[in-house]
Amino acid sequence: MGETVARDRNGLEVLSYEECLELLGARRVGRIALVNAGSPVIVPVNYVLDGTSVVIRSAPGAKLDGADRSRPVAFEIDEHDPESRTGWSVLVTGLAEPLEEPDEVERFDRELDAWALGDRDDVHLLRVRAESITGRRLDVPAAPRGG
Amino acid sequence: MGETVARDRNGLEVLSYEECLELLGARRVGRIALVNAGSPVIVPVNYVLDGTSVVIRSAPGAKLDGADRSRPVAFEIDEHDPESRTGWSVLVTGLAEPLEEPDEVERFDRELDAWALGDRDDVHLLRVRAESITGRRLDVPAAPRGG
Repeated sequence: MGETVARDRNGLEVLSYEECLELLGARRVGRIALVNAGSPVIVPVNYVLDGTSVVIRSAPGAKLDGADRSRPVAFEIDEHDPESRTGWSVLVTGLAEPLEEPDEVERFDRELDAWALGDRDDVHLLRVRAESITGRRLDVPAAPRGG
Repeated sequence: MGETVARDRNGLEVLSYEECLELLGARRVGRIALVNAGSPVIVPVNYVLDGTSVVIRSAPGAKLDGADRSRPVAFEIDEHDPESRTGWSVLVTGLAEPLEEPDEVERFDRELDAWALGDRDDVHLLRVRAESITGRRLDVPAAPRGG
């Protein structure tokens, strides 16, 4: 069975591009990582998948102003079950840019749940254009710890 | 009741330092964000809380070599319930450095489950010394969307 499964150098199953998109399409909450003054931060965000890009409500600190209107970000979703020791994760990396076209703003403002951010007056939408979409699954229990 | 709850500018409840440590102490899987060539990545990791620092198995790309032996990272745990529209997140930011003292390596190698990484031969342990530990909770349903 496992013969056709691609694995990375850590033994994790490599998810196909299609599987990654399917998982991304089935979720609504993920996490975005941004770099501020050389240091990363991670913030949970609501999102929707739009083709191969991820549209999010901007998080505090994620506002894109002035020269900084397009910046590299990472977006991640995952699931883990400590019981069965299985899990998966999908990572999207790319440039984030503000969504400004009124039709798009209206559409995604409707589609995106407001629940992860309390302040409805401070809505900013960002599109993360995927440069890479990758995923991993841990589907086998770790080997017993040898002595 | 809500009178004594601190809120940020987005209306989210600000978790106390003690609450953050309690949540961090009760979990074993989180996510680390690193900056590679200016771009962030997010990787799920097993961890244990050790005082106010987080000890993780290093993820692919997280190896700290040469001049890069200490670098800024972010570590995050969260939980969301789309049903009740509640959730919380805790963010640890600080410098990551390799764990090298043999006693510590042995101790944390034992404490840290191996299940999130398959390759037992490629174990690296990192300590994230917290410079800041912050948390947020969304405990109230979003207001109905006005027209």
